[in-house]
Amino acid sequence: MAWNMPRNMTERNTTESIATSPATLNRLSVYLRSLQTLLREGVKRTSSQELADRFQLSPAQIRKDLARFGEFGVRGVGYDVADLAERLTALLGLDRRQRLLIVGAGNLGSALARYLGFNDESFQIVALVDSAPQRIGKRISGVSIEPYDDLTGVVERSRAEIAVLTVPAEAAQEAYDRLVETGLRAILNFAPVSIVERPGVRLKNVDLRIHLEELTFFLAARE
Amino acid sequence: MAWNMPRNMTERNTTESIATSPATLNRLSVYLRSLQTLLREGVKRTSSQELADRFQLSPAQIRKDLARFGEFGVRGVGYDVADLAERLTALLGLDRRQRLLIVGAGNLGSALARYLGFNDESFQIVALVDSAPQRIGKRISGVSIEPYDDLTGVVERSRAEIAVLTVPAEAAQEAYDRLVETGLRAILNFAPVSIVERPGVRLKNVDLRIHLEELTFFLAARE
Repeated sequence: MAWNMPRNMTERNTTESIATSPATLNRLSVYLRSLQTLLREGVKRTSSQELADRFQLSPAQIRKDLARFGEFGVRGVGYDVADLAERLTALLGLDRRQRLLIVGAGNLGSALARYLGFNDESFQIVALVDSAPQRIGKRISGVSIEPYDDLTGVVERSRAEIAVLTVPAEAAQEAYDRLVETGLRAILNFAPVSIVERPGVRLKNVDLRIHLEELTFFLAARE
Repeated sequence: MAWNMPRNMTERNTTESIATSPATLNRLSVYLRSLQTLLREGVKRTSSQELADRFQLSPAQIRKDLARFGEFGVRGVGYDVADLAERLTALLGLDRRQRLLIVGAGNLGSALARYLGFNDESFQIVALVDSAPQRIGKRISGVSIEPYDDLTGVVERSRAEIAVLTVPAEAAQEAYDRLVETGLRAILNFAPVSIVERPGVRLKNVDLRIHLEELTFFLAARE
């Protein structure tokens, strides 16, 4: 029915979705996990109040977040757990397995390959690359490490959709640029460096050291 | 000179520092890294404008953030790079090595032990615990894995100050509670679960799956 919609309406919706804040998205992820817990327990119906009480959430926030993406619940009846879980799964793009490429197969990259690739319904490690010759050919989670020099070929053959950057800080920008040139549009970066971003590419930075420094600051301030 | 200050003023300052937002703290970490880069290059003086241009920051934000914690620069002269780096290092509690305990020595815990413990001036892995008998005694980064059952003893003997929680979701709350009971006041949690927090303890959650779900949402919204 999409051809029936005014063109600018579809565009507005897409733009709105892409512009959704990380905080809102993170809450949707938490709602989905909560619903999955209820599903495993055989619960068929729930309400924003019950979800809030059970999982330490805000009922008003749940209603507001879900209303933003469509009509999910029925007033006075609540939510159908399976239906809401299914719709959030699709909204978050988790209704099919995502193909992950790991760039940098050092300690962190190898661990993430094992951690994210292990028995996971939503994510699949399809390729690993590294620049160190002694690592090439080594297998992690059933995937063989390939040379970083052939990054473009690896992305093409593996049909990876998301790249996980676990290279040293000084190598991150070049790896980002090369990934974007191959057409990749979603990158999770663990390198402790500010990457100069390109438009149309979603970059999420996870800086473990910065998180630890929040804790050390707190400890120092207490002294 | 602390005894010269009105008591409530000291308290207010301490509370203010502890209440500093993660976003502000994360910017201080970025400023410190930027200064360390300049130091390595032999740069002696800098300005908020130069820092901003060089490291893609906001000059007004730099001035505002630094002003919050004291008088660092001299108008028209700028900042002494070494002095500012030293003061930020102390402010962030990085002027001495922090003792880290890793709870859960599976894939992620082991990798973080190697990653954070490797040649790091600010962080030192002092202990690892796990509940799986086959892992006990195994060494990672020179530290032997001890039994989770003896968590209290391990914290005491190792004098750990920060715990990194890399246990399965269902084990995280109990581990958190036990760590708090031993007196630990700073916890970095990787388990994908909402922990019921205790007052006076700083908890930082790092949820890798939620970060990936921000990317999958973006990819799904583009389709």
